[in-house]
Amino acid sequence: MPLRDDIQAYLDKDPAARFAWQVVLLYPGFQALLVHRLAHWLHLKGLFFLPHFLAYLVRIITSIEIHPAAKIGRRLVIDHGVGVVIGETATVGNDVIMYQGVVLGGTGKDRGKRHPDIEDGVFLSAGCKILGPVRVGKNAKVGAGAVVLKDVPPGCTAIGVPARILDRGEK
Amino acid sequence: MPLRDDIQAYLDKDPAARFAWQVVLLYPGFQALLVHRLAHWLHLKGLFFLPHFLAYLVRIITSIEIHPAAKIGRRLVIDHGVGVVIGETATVGNDVIMYQGVVLGGTGKDRGKRHPDIEDGVFLSAGCKILGPVRVGKNAKVGAGAVVLKDVPPGCTAIGVPARILDRGEK
Amino acid sequence: MPLRDDIQAYLDKDPAARFAWQVVLLYPGFQALLVHRLAHWLHLKGLFFLPHFLAYLVRIITSIEIHPAAKIGRRLVIDHGVGVVIGETATVGNDVIMYQGVVLGGTGKDRGKRHPDIEDGVFLSAGCKILGPVRVGKNAKVGAGAVVLKDVPPGCTAIGVPARILDRGEK
Repeated sequence: MPLRDDIQAYLDKDPAARFAWQVVLLYPGFQALLVHRLAHWLHLKGLFFLPHFLAYLVRIITSIEIHPAAKIGRRLVIDHGVGVVIGETATVGNDVIMYQGVVLGGTGKDRGKRHPDIEDGVFLSAGCKILGPVRVGKNAKVGAGAVVLKDVPPGCTAIGVPARILDRGEK
Repeated sequence: MPLRDDIQAYLDKDPAARFAWQVVLLYPGFQALLVHRLAHWLHLKGLFFLPHFLAYLVRIITSIEIHPAAKIGRRLVIDHGVGVVIGETATVGNDVIMYQGVVLGGTGKDRGKRHPDIEDGVFLSAGCKILGPVRVGKNAKVGAGAVVLKDVPPGCTAIGVPARILDRGEK
Repeated sequence: MPLRDDIQAYLDKDPAARFAWQVVLLYPGFQALLVHRLAHWLHLKGLFFLPHFLAYLVRIITSIEIHPAAKIGRRLVIDHGVGVVIGETATVGNDVIMYQGVVLGGTGKDRGKRHPDIEDGVFLSAGCKILGPVRVGKNAKVGAGAVVLKDVPPGCTAIGVPARILDRGEK
């Protein structure tokens, strides 16, 4: 069951998460994801106000803002999560983890598709900003506070402001 | 009418904003600005508790913190906005846009005037911090995550931590 | 009395704080600390749900997230504070000041002790991230937006992404 999977992901990835009920009742990241799943389903049914209102309400509670149109895969973990923004045309794959303040945003230059694609298994550290219609490849990592404006190849690590890609072997 | 202008600015600048009622009901950045206009007016009347209490309440709802004494021009767009801080002695011109996590703060070294002046048409990208009584000139841009501790001349772009000014022509 | 000390610290360090009642009623950073003191006491008594529920509630109000197990010294000032995260195994000394978006977090690599130790008198500027079981020494400063992944010696200043230690005399 997808929902059970979503909960299990927190128990696997956050050492401070001990019980399933703890994740459901006390983890804002999980709650924001749960409400997003409903809002996104309503969005796909063609509704406008209700999904946006749900996203607005959950942002008040959690300080996490996910646009109802954003496509999010399975087992996303949003840990802490205050300040997380996931834009309208962003996509997020399976088994992604993101921390406080991560933004999947636009640069202000694009119309239409203007937010990033995050592939499976990506690790987005606290405060990093991924801006524009760029792709962060499978199992890539983005360092804390990094600002990513270009594609990150699969398996690579991006750090710095603006971000550069670390060579393999570089620490 | 100023209020209509404020709403129109969102419709012009955020591709995800489609209807005026959507901005009024569902955009925390607009709501924080609206309450600030009232709090600032009460502040100018010499009241203390009420404007600060309004700012406190709207911070709970929106996670945007604007000191009642801050002077803000027309058509400010605060997009997403979780974590935005606008300090007591900051000024913001007309047609400014700012994103998640932008701080117009102090360095802890100054008393009295200790927050920045942001001139007309400035673009402040996600997570940038402008600290101290510095000036960001007309139509300047500050990149995501940048930390600005010195003046940014009009029309220039500042990026990096701490920020450097890009030469014209540099990308 | 410790609580009086906590309030006085705001009056001393934030030029915008004028009255004790203002700090108590209108300062989310103080409120988050007060609730944390109670949650931490309940945590030490062996309770689980209640301290975590208090931390969850105060995070909704303040957008500040302090794990009930985190050990926090006297006179901590959290100014603005949206996005502040203090992890489970973090310790914070006396007379520390931190601003919006400061994260005392993990890197995802450690189990057990996985969050930083912040010693007395440390200054943590807006948006900095201190990650992993590192130590920030007495009276050290961390610049805005800096990402600290290694120890910072006492009295030193760390800036940049990732952070480097400034030589004495360097500005």
